[in-house]
Amino acid sequence: MVQVAEAVGSAGAVHTQYADLPRPLALDCGRYLYPVRMAYETSGTLAPARDNIIMVCHALSGDAHAAGWSVEGAPSASDGFGAEERGSDRSGLGWWDNLIGPGKALDTDRYFVICSNLIGSCRGSTGPSSVDPTTGRPYALDFPVVTVADMVRAQRQLLDLLGIERLLAVIGGSLGGMQALEWSVSYPDVVGNCIATASTAHLGAQGVAWNAIARNAIMADPDWQGGHYYGTGRCPEAGIGVARMVGHVTYLSARSIEDKFGRRLQDRNNYSFTLGQPDFAVESYLRYQAQSFARRFDANSYLYISRALTYFDLAARAGGSLADAVSPAAARFLLISFTSDWLYPTADSILLEAALRAAGKSVERHEIDVPYGHDSFLLDAEDQTPIIREFLS
Amino acid sequence: MVQVAEAVGSAGAVHTQYADLPRPLALDCGRYLYPVRMAYETSGTLAPARDNIIMVCHALSGDAHAAGWSVEGAPSASDGFGAEERGSDRSGLGWWDNLIGPGKALDTDRYFVICSNLIGSCRGSTGPSSVDPTTGRPYALDFPVVTVADMVRAQRQLLDLLGIERLLAVIGGSLGGMQALEWSVSYPDVVGNCIATASTAHLGAQGVAWNAIARNAIMADPDWQGGHYYGTGRCPEAGIGVARMVGHVTYLSARSIEDKFGRRLQDRNNYSFTLGQPDFAVESYLRYQAQSFARRFDANSYLYISRALTYFDLAARAGGSLADAVSPAAARFLLISFTSDWLYPTADSILLEAALRAAGKSVERHEIDVPYGHDSFLLDAEDQTPIIREFLS
Repeated sequence: MVQVAEAVGSAGAVHTQYADLPRPLALDCGRYLYPVRMAYETSGTLAPARDNIIMVCHALSGDAHAAGWSVEGAPSASDGFGAEERGSDRSGLGWWDNLIGPGKALDTDRYFVICSNLIGSCRGSTGPSSVDPTTGRPYALDFPVVTVADMVRAQRQLLDLLGIERLLAVIGGSLGGMQALEWSVSYPDVVGNCIATASTAHLGAQGVAWNAIARNAIMADPDWQGGHYYGTGRCPEAGIGVARMVGHVTYLSARSIEDKFGRRLQDRNNYSFTLGQPDFAVESYLRYQAQSFARRFDANSYLYISRALTYFDLAARAGGSLADAVSPAAARFLLISFTSDWLYPTADSILLEAALRAAGKSVERHEIDVPYGHDSFLLDAEDQTPIIREFLS
Repeated sequence: MVQVAEAVGSAGAVHTQYADLPRPLALDCGRYLYPVRMAYETSGTLAPARDNIIMVCHALSGDAHAAGWSVEGAPSASDGFGAEERGSDRSGLGWWDNLIGPGKALDTDRYFVICSNLIGSCRGSTGPSSVDPTTGRPYALDFPVVTVADMVRAQRQLLDLLGIERLLAVIGGSLGGMQALEWSVSYPDVVGNCIATASTAHLGAQGVAWNAIARNAIMADPDWQGGHYYGTGRCPEAGIGVARMVGHVTYLSARSIEDKFGRRLQDRNNYSFTLGQPDFAVESYLRYQAQSFARRFDANSYLYISRALTYFDLAARAGGSLADAVSPAAARFLLISFTSDWLYPTADSILLEAALRAAGKSVERHEIDVPYGHDSFLLDAEDQTPIIREFLS
């Protein structure tokens, strides 16, 4: 399925670009962040009328490299089984390459696609591993707690800097969908269309719990050192590994993990009768994924972005009324969910659809029946492509 | 619901008793365990014909104290929301007190109920925190990896010692249900009826994964010290805390955790804009549960029992054929599952039912529609009581 979509075309070689925001960024916590560097990538050609711009927003461990081949050879930021499928022979391919490119859902022959790395992340934009100008050392825990609205404010400044005043569409999955929703409500004059896939107006208690567990695992690791591990030669690899394992299993459906691994043993015919050996293939897989994630992702960034995820609550700005909260939006909305996604279930999209309708908005909702769990938003191109293409046309 | 069932009657004050098994216990790993002490409790009166005996098997963090009030004041071993409901004012009450007692599902006016602590555990029976006679120090990781079959072998020796040759029934939930199934297949001449609730013939890949994550969290804690933490003044509290949080969320349904906590904040009106504060009530709850579990449960026991859980595969003895595996059983079977239990889903009970039917066994299966998740087997008395009572009569 992924292969079919990619055969249509590639966005080609893509460079990561950097921009320093001109003004201090006012944050929800009351503090200001400055300087702010934003890493971003673009695909396609900007139309003279500047009316073909699509902003792509990434999820927790994503980055600006959404499409094409990274000239810098950045490791893939795909999650779940996506991470594995984009293994060694395909590293450098963007995390949403199956949806972005010539002839694809976000057709780079027509659209100018821009994706920037989140503030708080560790993939080029300013985050806790960046140098704090007041101390000359990495911020670590002195980095302010940022929100989804803060992330979107930074993106808005980036677009200002690039002379972009209007977005044909803003699109994202998971946390990316939260940003798309935030964009549509906070900057209604900018956003023409809003596509939120495998996303929600807020995480429920179980989602809050999984995130809390992941953060606890990191902060419980002595190598985390209260967050000030930079330059110490030790970082909380074990803690972020456990956090990643928890996240990883929540990104998959019970069926997809069963179909892939079942109770198959790893390189053995019988149990080892030990505690430490990863006897089962699924254990071995999780360990490998945890280790490779720990190498590519900063633990403090994980903490900050996880916190932003759990803080996001679109209705809060209107005293809890989601319909009131979305009322400023001027965009058309497309909501996509997946039957097997138990982390961002279809019920959340239904709730959002009802609120948008109650507020008189144009909204279209699709539920796609694929078995890959939350991961589906990254893996499924076959079903998402016609829906997104139709919505944008 | 719990209150109603308990109002029927209490098994009263119960003492924990201890027995030393007479013979070395041959284990699946090829090693022998000796000496083996078994902690057990009984309720009700043994009939002169010794034909009213019900063996109750406990789950991962349970113990011998299933019913009545502990004379020794043992802390409650209930899991999930059950643990909370059996808080300070009710500590000392058995983990299945709502199902065991005069007039209850396992009516102690009629039946003699016995429950023993698992080998490998830390609640009175021999486990990794017990003294290794060859060194004079706690076994720690020198304790052999035990299986569900080993646990049942130890229970069989205990019954021999007590002069019990026949069980009217063996019953358990979760890992307890695995033991009940193992009993029925390994000792068909002993078991008259087998009741497995919220259980399975084997864990699927997702269940194996959750257990692997929990064990990883413990073993990644430097205070675990390769398992040899006894007497060092440090134990892997943080690691077992994370393990417990993961377990805890998997024991609940998304709905039950949502109904109880939603996005309610804990003792505050607004976000703290910190990483470490447990802003949400569900975060605070998980931390509290993790801490209290770390105090009452030995981390190595958690590792051993978790490993036994994942190793259990009833069909393995018959080359993967579940129907062939259960064919020696002579018991009548009762299988109970819960609609909201995603950890031990109804599909697992259906698979088991089909195998039992294919093997020509007498089997009755019920699915109960309650929202508490895997925890339902501990919390629900109203629905389980008439089913179990009817089955046994």
